[in-house]
Amino acid sequence: MSFLPAEIIKRKRNGFVLSEREIADFVLGYTDGSVPDYQMSALLMAIYFQGMSESETLSLTKTMLHSGVVVDLSSVPNFKVDKHSTGGVGDKTSLILGPIVASLGLPVPMISGRGLGHTGGTLDKLESIPGFNTQLSIDQFIQSLRKDQICFIGQTKEICPADKKIYALRDVTATIESLPLICASIMSKKLAEGIDGLVLDVKFGSGAFMKDPVKSEELAERLMAIARGHGKKVATLITNMDQPLGRYAGNSLEVAECVSIMKNEVHVGPCGYDLYADTRELSLQLSAQMLWLGGAAASVEKAYVLALGALESGRAFEKFEQLCRIHSGRLSELPKSPFRFDIESSESGFIQSMNTESIGVAGIQIRAGRSKTTDVIEPTAGIEFHAKVGDRIEKGQPLFSVYGADQALIRSTEKFLRATTLIGDQKVNPQPLILKTLS
Amino acid sequence: MSFLPAEIIKRKRNGFVLSEREIADFVLGYTDGSVPDYQMSALLMAIYFQGMSESETLSLTKTMLHSGVVVDLSSVPNFKVDKHSTGGVGDKTSLILGPIVASLGLPVPMISGRGLGHTGGTLDKLESIPGFNTQLSIDQFIQSLRKDQICFIGQTKEICPADKKIYALRDVTATIESLPLICASIMSKKLAEGIDGLVLDVKFGSGAFMKDPVKSEELAERLMAIARGHGKKVATLITNMDQPLGRYAGNSLEVAECVSIMKNEVHVGPCGYDLYADTRELSLQLSAQMLWLGGAAASVEKAYVLALGALESGRAFEKFEQLCRIHSGRLSELPKSPFRFDIESSESGFIQSMNTESIGVAGIQIRAGRSKTTDVIEPTAGIEFHAKVGDRIEKGQPLFSVYGADQALIRSTEKFLRATTLIGDQKVNPQPLILKTLS
Repeated sequence: MSFLPAEIIKRKRNGFVLSEREIADFVLGYTDGSVPDYQMSALLMAIYFQGMSESETLSLTKTMLHSGVVVDLSSVPNFKVDKHSTGGVGDKTSLILGPIVASLGLPVPMISGRGLGHTGGTLDKLESIPGFNTQLSIDQFIQSLRKDQICFIGQTKEICPADKKIYALRDVTATIESLPLICASIMSKKLAEGIDGLVLDVKFGSGAFMKDPVKSEELAERLMAIARGHGKKVATLITNMDQPLGRYAGNSLEVAECVSIMKNEVHVGPCGYDLYADTRELSLQLSAQMLWLGGAAASVEKAYVLALGALESGRAFEKFEQLCRIHSGRLSELPKSPFRFDIESSESGFIQSMNTESIGVAGIQIRAGRSKTTDVIEPTAGIEFHAKVGDRIEKGQPLFSVYGADQALIRSTEKFLRATTLIGDQKVNPQPLILKTLS
Repeated sequence: MSFLPAEIIKRKRNGFVLSEREIADFVLGYTDGSVPDYQMSALLMAIYFQGMSESETLSLTKTMLHSGVVVDLSSVPNFKVDKHSTGGVGDKTSLILGPIVASLGLPVPMISGRGLGHTGGTLDKLESIPGFNTQLSIDQFIQSLRKDQICFIGQTKEICPADKKIYALRDVTATIESLPLICASIMSKKLAEGIDGLVLDVKFGSGAFMKDPVKSEELAERLMAIARGHGKKVATLITNMDQPLGRYAGNSLEVAECVSIMKNEVHVGPCGYDLYADTRELSLQLSAQMLWLGGAAASVEKAYVLALGALESGRAFEKFEQLCRIHSGRLSELPKSPFRFDIESSESGFIQSMNTESIGVAGIQIRAGRSKTTDVIEPTAGIEFHAKVGDRIEKGQPLFSVYGADQALIRSTEKFLRATTLIGDQKVNPQPLILKTLS
């Protein structure tokens, strides 16, 4: 080894800015096993306390990105664009915006993760469709993008091995919660897709990783700087996760919601408005940003009109059906839960707040999500939301319906789920769905 | 495992105070291998940044102490007292104060370390005496203390295994420089000796671990709190390491200096004063604190008179000769270097300062010390000091003599050694030898 890992740890510990060379030596040394776990964990904790500059975060991302395969999409024509969300409850927009954008000719190369903790994952949602195979090879991925402009696959071993090894170590050494480490981990995986542009959906609120909109914006700025530092076009929506998105949270339920939206169906809930409206609107807004980045329209507004056209004409749904065929998914066999358990409001008033993270945890309890990577998901399990923050509800009116394959289990969440939702006399105005656009 | 190491790391990372149970679980788990290196290094780095409260440091010391054998000196009559120094250049007082205190009836159970970095170690000095065996068993150690009130041995595998394993990890993860970790490491080893009382010699200045007297005092207060927390009597001298102590630094040279002092010899240098005076005075002052702690005299002043008597009467030297016999050392065969190289002043003026740490590093270059534990020491190598801070010297007057077995090597230090000593026109008053007494 031509460098001293302990000296690099010490420099970071003492607040110095590490060079690109130092970061590359350390991270690649760790990936190939010449730097041991215990030195990486000490460096990670030093980074937790001292942070990383923009240039350091860029170097870390670059090193992790090039630790493995970067998908070469040069054989796929047009501007390749993807979306990344920082995660939430009921956050299912990828299943709608992917087909919208692809149907308008821009390839959407999505390499997605699984759900962990209170937030869901795109792969889990798609895999609730019987037969849907996300384990395609990189070659099949490229072929599908060339032919049909869309493909959704899971992380492979060849992509960002440094991130995989570091993430596993962060998980057991209390070094997950570090902004530069989070940014480098997200962006190295997204950049490995071979994209030209990226739209970020950075959530704030009770169900988001960052509760505070100001922190969300800080995270967004850092992610955008990394994307730009790699020569990619990027835009961000700062969006509301103070309540779940849409009608459902839960894998096959969310697919059903997306299918309904792409079929231009509405579902008017007991409070008198369409419970699909927010999912639909956010999917359109994100699509518009993607289309605009890709030069498909001269402005975001014109791009929105294009996206709306793709949705209303049914072309987005056709693309979704095509996506299912690419992945051998049998959409017509989408499973439904055998059991449903309604939770009604025990009082009248306005919904003051919904603890969205806790709602996600309730999802884990009914096996709609995972608390650890080895947990097995029940695809039909989930929660339906009949009312949202600011809604006026009466005693006895439904608040939630809980679905799943185990009747006792879905009933057992009642108390926990009730406690997530605060009802009071005050009329409340919820935060807007889209707080800010950054580009 | 009945606890989650990552949760304990997270609590410390977030600034919480760990319980005695959490510290014991983590440290003993690490010692037995059930907690891996990478979690311990993350915790150590979190401790580096968040510190440890007095109670946490006490718990850590207790756990490390009881991770191995605590020597049972209940069969040895009288108050058992030792001294610990935070280390310096030419710091040889153990070889004088041990015999003084033991000759007055108080057992001195010294378990010492080897030199590392710019500071020397008692074991290396003693082992420069041909035949001197420091590898006695714990049983032989106890027997010698019962019979002769003195024994000097090295760290054994049975003592503080947790500290050994943690120290090795700190060395490669840039977590050495943490006050609570330093304190727990020092004190667990000292407490394992089975002592009733401890005198600390905490150094400040250019050759000390802590350069700043205020930081030295903070270190002293923490060490004293741990000693008291374990029911031990304790006193501290805050002493000057802004220049080397005494006439020599180097193993057999330091033994020779101690022998001369115990034979009541003086060595008047070119600046007209006894170059043994500071070593002699500090040894007497530390002896006085040890005797006073042990109840051998009603006051420190009276204890000083006792110590002086032991030294002047030759009883301390008799005890030192006895110590050599215990350890099979042949003092009459103490080796001398075949070569000597004098460095004379290239200008006239007052010595403004001596970079004592650099002088220690020069000692490593001539193999009087080690930069890593596997380095082999040349026992006769060392440096003689002819003048100290504040002394008036003339051009051509000797500043240093360098000794060793390799003539080219000792000559090669000239430039480096000259640069350690600043000469100027200003009359300078050096800091006092003993800045403060804490008890």
